[in-house]
Amino acid sequence: MNSKIKVTKLDQSKGLYDCPGYLFSATASDIRDNQSGQLDLALIVGEANQALKAGAVFTQNDVTAAPVDLCKTVLEKSSENIGGIVVNSGNANACTGEAGITDAREMSTSAQVSTDIGHPFFVCSTGRIGRKMPINKIIEGIASCSKQLDSSQENSEAVSKAILTSDTFEKSATVNIDYKGQVLTLSGIAKGAGMIEPNMATMLAFLVTDLDVSHTCLQNGLKKACDKTFNCISIDGDMSTNDSVILLANGHSKLNPESDPDLLEAFEEAIFEVCDDLARKIVSDGEKITKVVTLDIQGCSSTEDAEKVARAIGNSLLVKSAFYGSDPNWGRVVDAAGYARIGLDINKLDLHYDSIPALISGNALEQNCADWKTVVEKDNYTITLNLNQGTSAFQLITTDLSEAYVNFNKSE
Amino acid sequence: MNSKIKVTKLDQSKGLYDCPGYLFSATASDIRDNQSGQLDLALIVGEANQALKAGAVFTQNDVTAAPVDLCKTVLEKSSENIGGIVVNSGNANACTGEAGITDAREMSTSAQVSTDIGHPFFVCSTGRIGRKMPINKIIEGIASCSKQLDSSQENSEAVSKAILTSDTFEKSATVNIDYKGQVLTLSGIAKGAGMIEPNMATMLAFLVTDLDVSHTCLQNGLKKACDKTFNCISIDGDMSTNDSVILLANGHSKLNPESDPDLLEAFEEAIFEVCDDLARKIVSDGEKITKVVTLDIQGCSSTEDAEKVARAIGNSLLVKSAFYGSDPNWGRVVDAAGYARIGLDINKLDLHYDSIPALISGNALEQNCADWKTVVEKDNYTITLNLNQGTSAFQLITTDLSEAYVNFNKSE
Repeated sequence: MNSKIKVTKLDQSKGLYDCPGYLFSATASDIRDNQSGQLDLALIVGEANQALKAGAVFTQNDVTAAPVDLCKTVLEKSSENIGGIVVNSGNANACTGEAGITDAREMSTSAQVSTDIGHPFFVCSTGRIGRKMPINKIIEGIASCSKQLDSSQENSEAVSKAILTSDTFEKSATVNIDYKGQVLTLSGIAKGAGMIEPNMATMLAFLVTDLDVSHTCLQNGLKKACDKTFNCISIDGDMSTNDSVILLANGHSKLNPESDPDLLEAFEEAIFEVCDDLARKIVSDGEKITKVVTLDIQGCSSTEDAEKVARAIGNSLLVKSAFYGSDPNWGRVVDAAGYARIGLDINKLDLHYDSIPALISGNALEQNCADWKTVVEKDNYTITLNLNQGTSAFQLITTDLSEAYVNFNKSE
Repeated sequence: MNSKIKVTKLDQSKGLYDCPGYLFSATASDIRDNQSGQLDLALIVGEANQALKAGAVFTQNDVTAAPVDLCKTVLEKSSENIGGIVVNSGNANACTGEAGITDAREMSTSAQVSTDIGHPFFVCSTGRIGRKMPINKIIEGIASCSKQLDSSQENSEAVSKAILTSDTFEKSATVNIDYKGQVLTLSGIAKGAGMIEPNMATMLAFLVTDLDVSHTCLQNGLKKACDKTFNCISIDGDMSTNDSVILLANGHSKLNPESDPDLLEAFEEAIFEVCDDLARKIVSDGEKITKVVTLDIQGCSSTEDAEKVARAIGNSLLVKSAFYGSDPNWGRVVDAAGYARIGLDINKLDLHYDSIPALISGNALEQNCADWKTVVEKDNYTITLNLNQGTSAFQLITTDLSEAYVNFNKSE
């Protein structure tokens, strides 16, 4: 905890339900066309048709899905008068041409009309790329959702479920800020699983707060937090067309963090905490993964260099296969670091598995081999690689690659 | 065929045996310490202790194995007075510190002394990274090889076998140049299989010719050919610490391509043909692959952009998993192209599976879906992606990713 004001992450988040002043609902609209009854469409709005303020961060992929393009426009034109979020799973509405843009617009308009909230909605979609949206089913679903909006725990849980694709569990996080006797809240939910190397990755995350915050302040806080959390995880190195993180503020608490530097610091810490928690949950629920490995790259000439090295290691098929097999194969780690081509010197490298040294100044400590093995057999461990050529660092949270991942993704 | 002189690739290459004026031998020196009797050490030299001229290209990985460092020094100091090549499989002599450098030097010196050829040897090693070389076994093996040197087909085949690691077949290629009634030869052998994204990939390739060629001319021709062949393949995106391609010339034919521009053109074509053939054989023998896919990226603003797009697609786990599953998932291809972030416009994209259009100006031709499926079920096909924003192109030959790859590489 860094800020002067107490910022507490709850042990058990109930998702959006934890934050006062929001309504939500979800429904099964059969977007997957398999009559499974799976929840696949959700709405998130403010109480009493209230306009919300927003910050948002989107995929950096050149190919952006239609809903991402629409969200960017909404944010540009109306960042302090947002109706809410309409989100579906089962179809990404990406690479769908003009029809996709029309469909995304229709979703936004339909949510605005059905809820009778006179402000534009963000639209988020996740699922298969390149398929026309079943827009009639979706419009019906939005109408149905609009009628069921409330602040119940049941509806909040339904929303957390409706956004999932290949995720195996719901992901939520809540942080409370104790400010002069008043409890302020930031809650978030997310989905991840595959095509995850956010920058943003289809990763979707929705955060809500009851503070009264301007768009600029929301945007700055969210951007800073994303760079240190969602943008520092990688499951398969594939950046999606749909990644979106949206932070909404309803001002319910009447407290504006811009009025008090300490509260601002606490609020930014809260955003970081929620994003960090959700990012870690996304990694731990990566498609068919068996291990989470933190790559702590230190001693680089620049953060950019450290990031290049971290991503080369974290995305190497040979490294990830060795993680899967619990093989303390530091040679593959060093090989991948080398092809990041930032000019490292093998004779300066220190590498540790958790606290156990494997390489010191480029020399392998083979006598520690049994101890390396004990570390890499764990579900969760850290590899620290110090290049000893500067003071910059980067941390990437990544996963192993399993045979089941390939089998799972061989068709869709 | 481009050159004015007839350049013919042989249907059946016998490897180094096809080129006059070279001696070779291989032996089983138990480098893997498993007493399998596997051939693992080989020598390639000129007839009658003759000095050879050489060109060579090495890995661009920051982390280079000790033998690569030694080869670079040999090339720098003695490029027209080379004794030959000593090569082992089973141990890469990479990340082995000072001991590794001493071992590589000892291999070179030992070959020079044992063969009684008074010129320095190139040293190449391939296998596990980070293990001390069993140098005594290797020195004994070099002594044994030195006694058995001859130009027989049997010994040539033994050399092709001795350099293999996880390869399932020997790779060789031979090109003849018909020049004024005289037949000139360029032969090559290679090994590949894993850690293959040459630039260079442990890929090793050795080419020999009976032309009389200066180091400069060999080096230029080899560099040009490598950039268009070995550097345009990717199996797993992992660039090795040991990649080396060496081209030797013994002048046996008394013909110097620098004396005749047409012969020079024919010689460069021959180098390209041999490298191209070996590169394709390496890809088709990638670890546990089931498909070879050529990515033909066209219509880019620069070759660099085209290459970035090709590598993003060719190294995407989701794309490679879909190749494996014969899923015509063009959405994943377009997604990966997008995260190369060269500024593509989805509305300009044309994508074909072989000759079957999948996307035209960003619009999917779903009616062709059955035809896409027929293409992607083949073992070998081409995806052409035209960005329609320029005239530059890049072709990458890549593979699918199978469950068996992960299982095979989960430990070593």
